[in-house]
Amino acid sequence: MEPVTLTQLQRKVDAYIGQYEEGYFPPFEMLARLAEELGELSREVQHVYGHVKKKQVDHNNIEKEMGDLFFTLICFANAQGIRLEDALHQVLHKFETRDKDRWTRKEERHD
Amino acid sequence: MEPVTLTQLQRKVDAYIGQYEEGYFPPFEMLARLAEELGELSREVQHVYGHVKKKQVDHNNIEKEMGDLFFTLICFANAQGIRLEDALHQVLHKFETRDKDRWTRKEERHD
Amino acid sequence: MEPVTLTQLQRKVDAYIGQYEEGYFPPFEMLARLAEELGELSREVQHVYGHVKKKQVDHNNIEKEMGDLFFTLICFANAQGIRLEDALHQVLHKFETRDKDRWTRKEERHD
Amino acid sequence: MEPVTLTQLQRKVDAYIGQYEEGYFPPFEMLARLAEELGELSREVQHVYGHVKKKQVDHNNIEKEMGDLFFTLICFANAQGIRLEDALHQVLHKFETRDKDRWTRKEERHD
Repeated sequence: MEPVTLTQLQRKVDAYIGQYEEGYFPPFEMLARLAEELGELSREVQHVYGHVKKKQVDHNNIEKEMGDLFFTLICFANAQGIRLEDALHQVLHKFETRDKDRWTRKEERHD
Repeated sequence: MEPVTLTQLQRKVDAYIGQYEEGYFPPFEMLARLAEELGELSREVQHVYGHVKKKQVDHNNIEKEMGDLFFTLICFANAQGIRLEDALHQVLHKFETRDKDRWTRKEERHD
Repeated sequence: MEPVTLTQLQRKVDAYIGQYEEGYFPPFEMLARLAEELGELSREVQHVYGHVKKKQVDHNNIEKEMGDLFFTLICFANAQGIRLEDALHQVLHKFETRDKDRWTRKEERHD
Repeated sequence: MEPVTLTQLQRKVDAYIGQYEEGYFPPFEMLARLAEELGELSREVQHVYGHVKKKQVDHNNIEKEMGDLFFTLICFANAQGIRLEDALHQVLHKFETRDKDRWTRKEERHD
């Protein structure tokens, strides 16, 4: 499959949601969905990395739950008219300016 | 700015993280970061849509906090070797098959 | 059943956990559990109050999920040696001093 | 201070909230508050236990954030007419029956 732009993915989700009467959820329900999906991702991470590990673990479950969280985030962004690509560039720009000395650059260590 | 693919965005974040000694966080810390970012998004949604609204609201804050959440999700995906595009397509495929009758299609209503 | 103090409840949970080899989880796993339980509470709240309501709703599920979240919070508090009663009094004290004018007192309105 | 029952604590919070016009928040805003408080607790846990530790850490912050989360949980329980003591006993009862073999009892190991 040819790689698609993030904007194309947001439109794909919009076309999917647009088929249904229910449409996007109101903002607080979107948050509740995000909390639900984060909880499910959390459960899978515990199964794989927790100190009481599950005997049989399906590593693909983390990918599935991440996909659900990402889908919900895209829905919320679409409902708010936010381009996630712009939102991400804003973050990266903040890191390259305001937070640029927050972490240790690899070349900086001279111990 | 030319639209970029999601894979390019994941690589961009990887290049950013790769500059620093600290690298990606372990899985449970990634979850903790996601919970922190969801909490901050949650606070901004309350400010804008809550029943006790803030007088002065910066609507751009929701975009900022969504950006932070998205960045953290990309970090977690990168650390796990997950392509978010694949994860999303898996979700959309599930919706089009298993969950296809979960919602009300627009053409279906005859009231 | 005679009402018990919060400290007695914390000890009861401690006695329960103390029976098992696994003991309390490390801090980041406790957070992950809290996120998981909040997610489950979130799902039940959507079922009862969401704009696409479930046909059959068990109102007791919210109580069950709140119980799970509370149990996990007590575990975390116990593992950290925190008395939740003290933690709560600290919050109430903050509200009565620093935040005392944050909300509208009932007697204050003269419209 | 004499130890108080959980029911007395719920009433104390109710008396506090009852002073204000705003009253309890609707269910989805309560969830949003819980997510916000969990996010703040999460941030403090990262400061104390994260692999990039803060130089100066106030251990009392975890107690403060746990107090805020507990306060919000009590508010939600009060708004729903739920006695947290009952909710907790329901959980403990489930553990002692349905889940009683989920963990390893201390006396069971013979290695």
